This record gives sequence, C-alpha cells and structure tokens, in this order.
Amino acid sequence: MRPSGRTPEQPRDIRITRHYTRHAEGSVLVEFGDTKVICTASVENKVPPFLRGEGKGWITAEYGMLPRSTGSRMGREAARGKQGGRTVEIQRLIGRSLRAAVDLSALGEHSITIDCDVIQADGGTRTAAITGGCVALVDALNHLVKEGRLKTSPLKQMIAAFSVGVYKGTPVLDLDYPEDSEAETDMNVIMTDQGGFIEIQGTAEGAPFEQEELDGMLKLAKLGIGQLFEAQKAALAQ
Amino acid sequence: MRPSGRTPEQPRDIRITRHYTRHAEGSVLVEFGDTKVICTASVENKVPPFLRGEGKGWITAEYGMLPRSTGSRMGREAARGKQGGRTVEIQRLIGRSLRAAVDLSALGEHSITIDCDVIQADGGTRTAAITGGCVALVDALNHLVKEGRLKTSPLKQMIAAFSVGVYKGTPVLDLDYPEDSEAETDMNVIMTDQGGFIEIQGTAEGAPFEQEELDGMLKLAKLGIGQLFEAQKAALAQ
Amino acid sequence: MRPSGRTPEQPRDIRITRHYTRHAEGSVLVEFGDTKVICTASVENKVPPFLRGEGKGWITAEYGMLPRSTGSRMGREAARGKQGGRTVEIQRLIGRSLRAAVDLSALGEHSITIDCDVIQADGGTRTAAITGGCVALVDALNHLVKEGRLKTSPLKQMIAAFSVGVYKGTPVLDLDYPEDSEAETDMNVIMTDQGGFIEIQGTAEGAPFEQEELDGMLKLAKLGIGQLFEAQKAALAQ
Amino acid sequence: MRPSGRTPEQPRDIRITRHYTRHAEGSVLVEFGDTKVICTASVENKVPPFLRGEGKGWITAEYGMLPRSTGSRMGREAARGKQGGRTVEIQRLIGRSLRAAVDLSALGEHSITIDCDVIQADGGTRTAAITGGCVALVDALNHLVKEGRLKTSPLKQMIAAFSVGVYKGTPVLDLDYPEDSEAETDMNVIMTDQGGFIEIQGTAEGAPFEQEELDGMLKLAKLGIGQLFEAQKAALAQ
Amino acid sequence: MRPSGRTPEQPRDIRITRHYTRHAEGSVLVEFGDTKVICTASVENKVPPFLRGEGKGWITAEYGMLPRSTGSRMGREAARGKQGGRTVEIQRLIGRSLRAAVDLSALGEHSITIDCDVIQADGGTRTAAITGGCVALVDALNHLVKEGRLKTSPLKQMIAAFSVGVYKGTPVLDLDYPEDSEAETDMNVIMTDQGGFIEIQGTAEGAPFEQEELDGMLKLAKLGIGQLFEAQKAALAQ
Amino acid sequence: MRPSGRTPEQPRDIRITRHYTRHAEGSVLVEFGDTKVICTASVENKVPPFLRGEGKGWITAEYGMLPRSTGSRMGREAARGKQGGRTVEIQRLIGRSLRAAVDLSALGEHSITIDCDVIQADGGTRTAAITGGCVALVDALNHLVKEGRLKTSPLKQMIAAFSVGVYKGTPVLDLDYPEDSEAETDMNVIMTDQGGFIEIQGTAEGAPFEQEELDGMLKLAKLGIGQLFEAQKAALAQ
Repeated sequence: MRPSGRTPEQPRDIRITRHYTRHAEGSVLVEFGDTKVICTASVENKVPPFLRGEGKGWITAEYGMLPRSTGSRMGREAARGKQGGRTVEIQRLIGRSLRAAVDLSALGEHSITIDCDVIQADGGTRTAAITGGCVALVDALNHLVKEGRLKTSPLKQMIAAFSVGVYKGTPVLDLDYPEDSEAETDMNVIMTDQGGFIEIQGTAEGAPFEQEELDGMLKLAKLGIGQLFEAQKAALAQ
Repeated sequence: MRPSGRTPEQPRDIRITRHYTRHAEGSVLVEFGDTKVICTASVENKVPPFLRGEGKGWITAEYGMLPRSTGSRMGREAARGKQGGRTVEIQRLIGRSLRAAVDLSALGEHSITIDCDVIQADGGTRTAAITGGCVALVDALNHLVKEGRLKTSPLKQMIAAFSVGVYKGTPVLDLDYPEDSEAETDMNVIMTDQGGFIEIQGTAEGAPFEQEELDGMLKLAKLGIGQLFEAQKAALAQ
Repeated sequence: MRPSGRTPEQPRDIRITRHYTRHAEGSVLVEFGDTKVICTASVENKVPPFLRGEGKGWITAEYGMLPRSTGSRMGREAARGKQGGRTVEIQRLIGRSLRAAVDLSALGEHSITIDCDVIQADGGTRTAAITGGCVALVDALNHLVKEGRLKTSPLKQMIAAFSVGVYKGTPVLDLDYPEDSEAETDMNVIMTDQGGFIEIQGTAEGAPFEQEELDGMLKLAKLGIGQLFEAQKAALAQ
Repeated sequence: MRPSGRTPEQPRDIRITRHYTRHAEGSVLVEFGDTKVICTASVENKVPPFLRGEGKGWITAEYGMLPRSTGSRMGREAARGKQGGRTVEIQRLIGRSLRAAVDLSALGEHSITIDCDVIQADGGTRTAAITGGCVALVDALNHLVKEGRLKTSPLKQMIAAFSVGVYKGTPVLDLDYPEDSEAETDMNVIMTDQGGFIEIQGTAEGAPFEQEELDGMLKLAKLGIGQLFEAQKAALAQ
Repeated sequence: MRPSGRTPEQPRDIRITRHYTRHAEGSVLVEFGDTKVICTASVENKVPPFLRGEGKGWITAEYGMLPRSTGSRMGREAARGKQGGRTVEIQRLIGRSLRAAVDLSALGEHSITIDCDVIQADGGTRTAAITGGCVALVDALNHLVKEGRLKTSPLKQMIAAFSVGVYKGTPVLDLDYPEDSEAETDMNVIMTDQGGFIEIQGTAEGAPFEQEELDGMLKLAKLGIGQLFEAQKAALAQ
Repeated sequence: MRPSGRTPEQPRDIRITRHYTRHAEGSVLVEFGDTKVICTASVENKVPPFLRGEGKGWITAEYGMLPRSTGSRMGREAARGKQGGRTVEIQRLIGRSLRAAVDLSALGEHSITIDCDVIQADGGTRTAAITGGCVALVDALNHLVKEGRLKTSPLKQMIAAFSVGVYKGTPVLDLDYPEDSEAETDMNVIMTDQGGFIEIQGTAEGAPFEQEELDGMLKLAKLGIGQLFEAQKAALAQ
C-alpha cells in the first residue's frame, strides 16, 4: 500500500555517520532513506545576553536546505535576505527538543549550536535533524569533557524523533515525500529514551483526525523511536 | 491551587465582541480574561500566485503584538525590520487552523486575511486569536454572500482552540501568564465543532510528559473547547 | 457643507480614556470621532547612546496602523520588513512634539517611548496620537514620582494638536477622512497650553495657499486646541 | 550678530550651475554658500503602478548625503541597508514640492525622478535641493519638448524654498549650520513664483514660538524667495 | 617546505563524484584534498528579465558555506539576512567563469544555476567550485539534450581553476588553508581546456609581487590545470 | 581606431583636485576624462572589533555611484536596502589596494575610511577611485602628523591603478565606456610606485586571452601607471 512497499510500522533505512566533517566538535551525517542531513555541533565559550552571569549554558539550532536538495530549486535564503517561516518553525523545534537532552545548569557558560543542513530531502528532514543532531550534541559534550572544560557530560537523556501520519486511512511510520504530500494527517513525535514525550505536533492536512487515529499514530511512533535510540547507541559505540 | 483561584477545568471569562472596528468585513474583539486580541478578516478579489487560475480561494493569517501589550515593552517588529520566530510560528498556526474551517474550492478566487493583533497579553494569545478569528471569518464569508459574490457560505465547520497544560502536577485548562510561565507542559489544542482535532502542539517545558498526562490534557481540552463553540454561537446569534 | 454636517469650527467628539490597557505606565485610548488610537507610555531605566552619562532623559515615539484600520487592508509593515515613509514622518513628528512637554534635564536617565497604534482610522491620526500621547506621558511621569524615582514631575506644559484645512474654499477644523482626501490645503498645528506653537506643517494639496487662508486656519486651530486641553484636563482629573 | 556677519535678511551667495554632469536630462549644482547639492532630473517612459493607464505623469525625489559631506562621517545608508528617518522625511518634502510645479495631466505617462545628493553640507540642504531641483526639472521638461515627446512644457510655475528661523531672538533668513544648530525656531518655506505657499514646516527647537515670530519669519521668507526666483531665471537664461 | 609535504607543483588529491545528490540535473561532489564542495546545476525554463525574448540562455552561480565548514563557526548568512562581501565576490567569479564554457545563444531560453555549497573548507573553495561546477554544468546540458529540449549540447569548452601563490618565497600550486593564510601572494587562475585564460586574479597579501613571480605562478597554474581537465574527463567518462 | 581617437597607449586627461570638499581630512576630485569620482578620507579614533587592543590601524573603503552618474538611472542602493554585488566587489578591491600603501602598525589605533562616490561615470571608476583615494589618504595621514597624533606619516608607498584591455585585437590603456563595453578582455592593474603589483584582475569578456595578450596589457599598464604617479606627485606638491 505504501509507495515504497514498506509495511506501516517499517521505517526507512537509518544511517548515522559520525565525524562526517572535520572541523566541528560534533559532526554527523544522518540518513532516513533518501533524506540526508549534515548535523554539526559547535561549542562557543559564551552564552546569549539573557543568560550572562547565570552560570548556565545554552543550546540552539539552525536549519537550512541546500537550494537543490529538493525536486525543484528553492531560492537561497541568504540571497533572499531572510529565513522563511517553515525554516524558523523547524529550527525552533530542533532547538527546544535538544535542550531537553542536557542539564543546562551543568553545562557551564558554554553555547552549543546545532546546524542542520539538508543536502537531500525526501520527507522527514526535521525528525532526521533532531535524531542526528542529538548524536552530534553528545560528541560535543564529550569533547568538552575530554578537553577538561567540564568534569562530566551534562547529558540527561537521548532525544529522537519520527514522523507518523495517516496515509490512505492507515497510520504509518516515517513518511517519505510521496506519502507526506498526500497524508491526511502528519505528526512529529519527539521522545526521550526513557519513554517520555518532549514534543508532539500533529496537523490535520485534510479531514480532522480523531482520538483513535491519534492513539494509533502515537503507538507507532513509540515503537519506531525505540529503533532510533538503538541506531544512535550503535553509532556512538563505534 | 491556581494563582487565579480557578478550578483546573475552569476557563477564564470568554467575551467575543463582533463589529469591533468599522472597516473590515469581519472585526472581532476576543477576550480570554485579560488577554485581548483584535481579529479582523479582510477580503480581496485575488489569490496568491501559486493558486492563480485554479478557481479556489485562500485564507491566511498575520499576528502581531502591540509593543506594550506585555509586562515589559517589546521592540516593534516593523522597526526592527523583521518578524520574530515566535510571531511567524503563531501566524502559520492560525492560518492552517482557519483554512480547515472553509471549503476553499467553494470560496472562489477570493483571499481572506485574518489579522490578529494583541492589544493586551496574559497568556493564550494564539488560542484566543484562532477562536475569535473564526468568528471574524464567518462574518467575512457572510459578507461575500450578502454582496452576491458567493451564493452560499463555504463554511464547513467552526474552529476553536484552548491551551491546556500541566501546572504543579495537575492538568489545567486555559493557562494565564503566571501559570504558563511555570507549567511543566504546555499544549495547544485546535478542534472542530464536530469533535475532530485540527492541530495538537504539546511541548514539555521541564520534564517530559507521559501518555497519561497527555490523555488528561486532551480530555480537559475537549470539554473546554465545547464552551468556546457556545460562545462563538452566542456572538454570531446577536 | 461638511460631509459630517459639522460647522467649520466644530471638532468631532473627543474622548480620552485612561488606563485602557493594563501593563503600560501610561495607557490611553484617544478617539477623535471614528479615529481611534491606543497610546501607551513605557518607561525604561536607560537612555540612547548619544545621551549616556549626560544625566538627561529622552522621549521618543513609534507609530503604527493595524493593517485593517483603514478602508482597504494595508500590508503589515513588520511583514514587509520596513516602516513606510509616512510612518517614519509621523512618528518623528509625535516624538518632537512630546519632547517639548517635558524638561528632559529633570527627567533623569529615563527613556519614555510613546507607542501610538491606530486601531481605526478616519483622518487626523497624528493629531489624535499627539493629544492622547501627551496624557499617557503625564501618567508615566506621575508613575515615576509615585515610585520615588523622581521627586516631582518634569512636565513643563501640555501639548495638543488639531488638523485644519481649506475644504471647498472654507477653513475647517479637525478634518475627517472624506474631507481630508478632498481638501485643498491640509495643516497640522501642534500647540502648548500656554498658547505657543510647537510645530506647524501646512501643505497645499492642490492650489497654493495664501497668507489669508493661513491666518484663517491658524485662528481655527487655536480655538479648537483649547478644547483639547480641556478634554485632557478632564481625563486627568478622573 | 550672525556668525557669518550677514544681516538678518541677507541670504548666502546663491549659485546655480546647469549641465553640471553629462548624462541626466537635467543636471544642476546648487550652492547656498557652502551647502552644495547635485540635483539631477531623470526621465523614464513609465509611471508607478497606481497611475498606470491614467494618462498622467509623476514626479518623485530621492535625497542622499555623501558620507563625508558633514563634519563627522555619517554611516553610508546603502551599507546600513536602509534610509534614515530624516532622509525619508526630506525626500518626501522635495517630491511633494516639485510636483506642484508641473501639470501632471499634461506630462503624459512619464516619470521624472529628482535625485538630490549633498556633496557638502552647511545647513539648508533641503531648501537648496528644492530650489536647484526645480531648475533640473525645467531642463528635463524642455528636453521632452525638444525630443518631440511633449508638444509644450507642462511647467505651471517655479518653486523655490528658503529656511528661516529665530536666532538669538531675531528672525533670520537662510540659516547656515552654526545658526541652525542654535536657533530657537526653524522653518522651511516653499513658495511658487506667483506668491502662494506650497508648504510651511515650522518647528520650535527650544521654546514655543508665537504668532508674531511666525509672521516675522514668513515676511523674511517671502522677500528672500523672490531672490531665488531671480537666480533660477538667470540660470535658465544662459 | 610545504606544511603538507607536497612539492611546489603538486596539487592535492582531486576527486570528482557525479550524481552525488538525486534531484538536480547535475550534481557533483568535488574534493581538492580536504576542501569539499557540493556543486549542483539546476535548469529552469526561463531567463532573467534583461534577456527575455532574446532567444538566449543564462548561467549564474550562487555560493555558500555551511556555518561549520570552517575551523570556527561562521554566522549563517540566511540568519544574518545578507550575503557577505566575500560570498558575493566568489559567486560572481564562478558565474562569469562558467558562462565562458557555453554558447549562450545555442542554449535557448533556459537558465542554469550552479549552486556551490562548501561542506568542508581547507583553502581553494572557489577554484574547486569552478572545476566541479563545470562538470555539473556538462551533466545539465546533456540532460537538456537527452530530454529533447536541445538538439546538441551548447558546450564550447571545459573550464577549470587552480589557486597558485608565493609561499615562503616559492611559487606553489593549489594552496591549502595553512599555506593560504601565510602566502605573500595569492592568485586564482581560470583557464579553458584550449589553454586560454578566462580570469586571473592575483593579490599581494604582504609585499607587492614582481613580473618574475607572476610568470612563475602562471607557469605552475597552466601545468596544474591540465591535470584538472583530465580529472574532469575521467569523471565524465564514467 | 579608438572611439576617442586616442593612441593605444594614451590615457585620458588625468586631473586630481585636492581639498575638493571642506569637512574631510582628505578630499579629492579625481577625473579620468569624463569619469569623475569624489574621494574623501575620514579618520576615526577607533578600530574594528577584530583589531581592538592590537595597537594597529585599519583602512577601509566604500564605493557608491550617484543614481544618475550613468547613461540611464540606476536604482539608489540606499533605497533598495542593499549594496549590489558589483559595488561590494569594487569597494573591497579599493580597500585592499589602499591598505598596501600604509604601514598599519605605525598608524596606531586609527581607522581611515576612503569614500569613493562617482558623480559621473565613463568607464574606469574603480581605477580612478584607487588613484584619487591614495591622494586623499596621504592628506589624511599628514593631517594626523600635523595634529600631533602621529610622529611621522606611516605611508609606505603610493598606489595607483589603470585599466587595460584588448579592444578590436589591440591592447589599449585606460578604457572609456564605449571601449569597455566592447572590449574582448578587461584588466585592472594596481601597482606601487616602486614597480610592484598589488593586484591584477583580468577577465575575458568574449574569447579567452592568451599569454601574449596578457604580456601586452601588463606592459601598457606599467607605462601608463607611471604617469599616474606623476599626477599624484604634482597634486601633492601644490
């Protein structure tokens, strides 16, 4: 039934490649099938003005798509002179989600910026970015420990995310672009590896969705996200 | 337990005043307690480029806060030269939600812009804006019928929204600012008057939230939103 | 002769409502007939860079119109990314005028921003904004005294403003939109309650105007502005 | 009494040089003493969107200062990414004033842009720009006639402008920078060569000004502007 | 003598990978040692306004660096709201250079945009971008032929580029970042595969350079660029 | 053969007028035939953030064209809200070139901004700007010595620039606009008065250029630039 031939609860191939580029404190290429996102974590020895002198750290995210990561070329946001609404919405979501991974009080006055740049898009870029960004973040935190700037890593929990949706009446996991553009409902679920929810964003694209569909999607998401935590763990073990 | 003395399932006083200003096709002052938002609906005889020649209409929303609608003055977005991320996120949510109220194919080549301008803020501005904006939208649709530009109103269903959250461990309805700034979880629920969900956005502010809390918040939201549909109906009956 | 049936020297109904919104140190709704402007005065404990360390205060103004305060919807300046020329011109006029009300040396290192947001426009928004903004300013100054941050109010004089014009050959006071759009000459007169001029801006819209017409308009303005000072006094007495 | 040793009614040396640069349809260097402004008039065969198909023409102005036209270097507006409030205010005034010189209905669907670029500033740049810009405009109109694009020049009347002010208690004409920065009142008067007023903008810089001072300043302005019309005539006769 | 141990005339390892991403008509990963740039070529069926109706095509380029492609994180240009001077300079150079590869009259009314996004930087990003961009361009031209939109490819000649410089007194080829930041002279040489120069940009970073050094650098460049044409040919043969 | 009747090695009339405007520390009008550029040098007692506390100075340049310096009016960059790519490229070139004239370590913590504003354009504006800007810079350096802020001038060498090109197959010096728009190759050569190259930028506009043409152009440039150093010397001697 799914264009890709996957079963409803079957995600795409998940690949997480660490040390993808050389300069960043954490650098990950995350692939959810044909969706490919470079996630880098950059550490700075300063915090935004609203946190100065608080002894706490900060984590933020920025998101971008290469102009031709998509089927038809999108205008370059730097050339147009502003980030679009969708970009802003996504980078705020990534930032909020990844802040939940870390004890900011134990991070000291460091900022970590997670840059998520989509080099190829096929649906699910924001969930891939959160999942891969969390691995880059772990590497950056460990880098701070290794360099003696922190005694122990302030990581509280791993964060990962999957999209779920209702496609032709059936809840499905990890929608690719052909599914995403026709789904009745689209939901992004961000969870911790202890099973709690960090964020849920569900949107009816056509008809409203009912409690039963919501429950079905959340069930799929919980099962699927478990596999993401395993993929993160395997990547971090290498 | 609540700073306002309300019970967990008790919303603030809801007031919906139609014909609040004189020029717009729909003009509503919506008040959720001390939160006050002017919602106007403006009709134009044209559609955005991506819809030209499709015979369909479009509904979009813009959101703004007066600089001193809040406790301390915020910089004016027009003076700073760009809308902030929060503004963009909210106006996209309002637009998506209100498009679900209308059969766009039956709207003809008209655009309706819902402007939501907060003149006083005390939490819940986006849910007030959706609830009041839907009434302004109904007035604008009826205006098109009255002027003979449409035969019947393309309204499919009413849309309303409440925030719910977990405050000191208890799910509560319609958070005001003092609650909102301390809640563990904050969720905006947008529903149709037929009981379906249009959008759910739940965010863990501190600890992750569990399925049980989610269920409790959704239950509260459904009950509360029923009261909003009654308030909309009463306003439209005048 | 006037579309509204008023006599040449008759202003519209003037209403000044203090404490209109809750957060600002001064908050006034000013109405000149159907023209309605929210004026808030916000105090900050700092001054612009060019005044730092001078021991003096500063007063500035910002002006905006809700997109649908007018007959047809205007683009939102925050969305377009810049304030238009007319907006800039008006807010500079309001700021200059209200600075004349206050002994800036006696204000200490405080800044007061007067935000004037038009929620319904029917001509004369800048003169309404100056007149109502002065009342909001007085409240903000008294707030500083009440809080012990100033010993006495640095108010020197009240400021108020009316538009006058030549409409169908006759000088008239307080033009509404139908008059304003057809007037041969349009003049804004800003005065102190001691009878001096703060600013005069007269523009020939069609034919040039002569000394005699100028004299006629100034005479009308002086008489009319006296009524504004009474309205301000009455509002401040409540 | 005046820093320059001039009598109150004595303007600075006025020089108007036509054909100052080679490309523009009208190109004038205007000098009011040490204030030097290049005014060019550029003709285009199109009108702004709001005038399309009306058979009328349009005249607009833009104003700029070279960064080091002033005593200390000002940031370049092109580099800062926006025109300042003062610039916007001045170019709107120049545009309004020069539109009064021409019968726009007889101009046909042509636009004329008057660019006024200050290369050296010593007070009075806007009045110099209006006075010199009018001469550039006349040359551009004559150019249209010479090229056969118009049968006769649509010029209705010449426009010129002087600043007047109250300096140390005395009304004076054509303030230079040292006077301007200390004047109690500053007024720009724009007139036609038939003696009517096009625009009057008077601002109290310190104390309010009285009717008597206003009368004194207007009298000086009328006398002075007569000399500007002679200078324009002499320049155009060459 | 060189930090990398290379001989003066030895370039870094050159790798050109075609079909790197899936959506673009041409998509190449080009690597000059640790410098890695994704070059995509996107075809559109329209040309810029200045070419409309001329029957000719256009080729342009845009350049960007991922924020953490460099040793310390650079601010994202999309977030800062403008492209920096260096970015603009580089993308203009790439566009000019690649236009020389194609007979624009034979391209028909098509535009091709070459996006060059640096994912890892180690000196020489602009020369890598030109060299890899030319291969992506060839693929896009062949795509137009394959789809029947052009009868034959309008490719005139291949273009490639190397940097040369004077490092510790010796001319060297293909500077990496450690060399680039200390070189006395830095020159980018863009050539055709028929041996002509398309662009030469040489800059003295410290002391001026002499004719003899110029000759030495150009000689190195010519030899080196020959190897780039071979690498392009090998990639296109696969 | 040349449209102007000049011989290939003949430059246009070069005029350098010092003290052209009154406020700047250095102010020069430079004319290469009909190309006229005002170059001012402004001294500030501070350096950019990246140099603070280093004890060194900085030299930078900004470039602009009056809207009607050219045959058809260009949009004003300040009004469009950004500097175009060509402007950015040129001002970076001027800045780099003039920094080579000065020992920045001996300049102390001063910044000098060279503003180059084109009032009439006929080709070669950037080379005129560099040549005239260097004279303005010398005056600004001498001003610092005269005021006792520096003991001796940190001038290391004079800098001047000419364009050369291949026009109808022949290398020519100092192209004017009619030549520039038809030249096969266009090259800007910036040199020191000791005969070294500071920057070479050669671009093939049509066919690629060969080593022989390059040699021919460089030879012309060297001869021509010698005359510029004499013109600079003569101007500085007055």
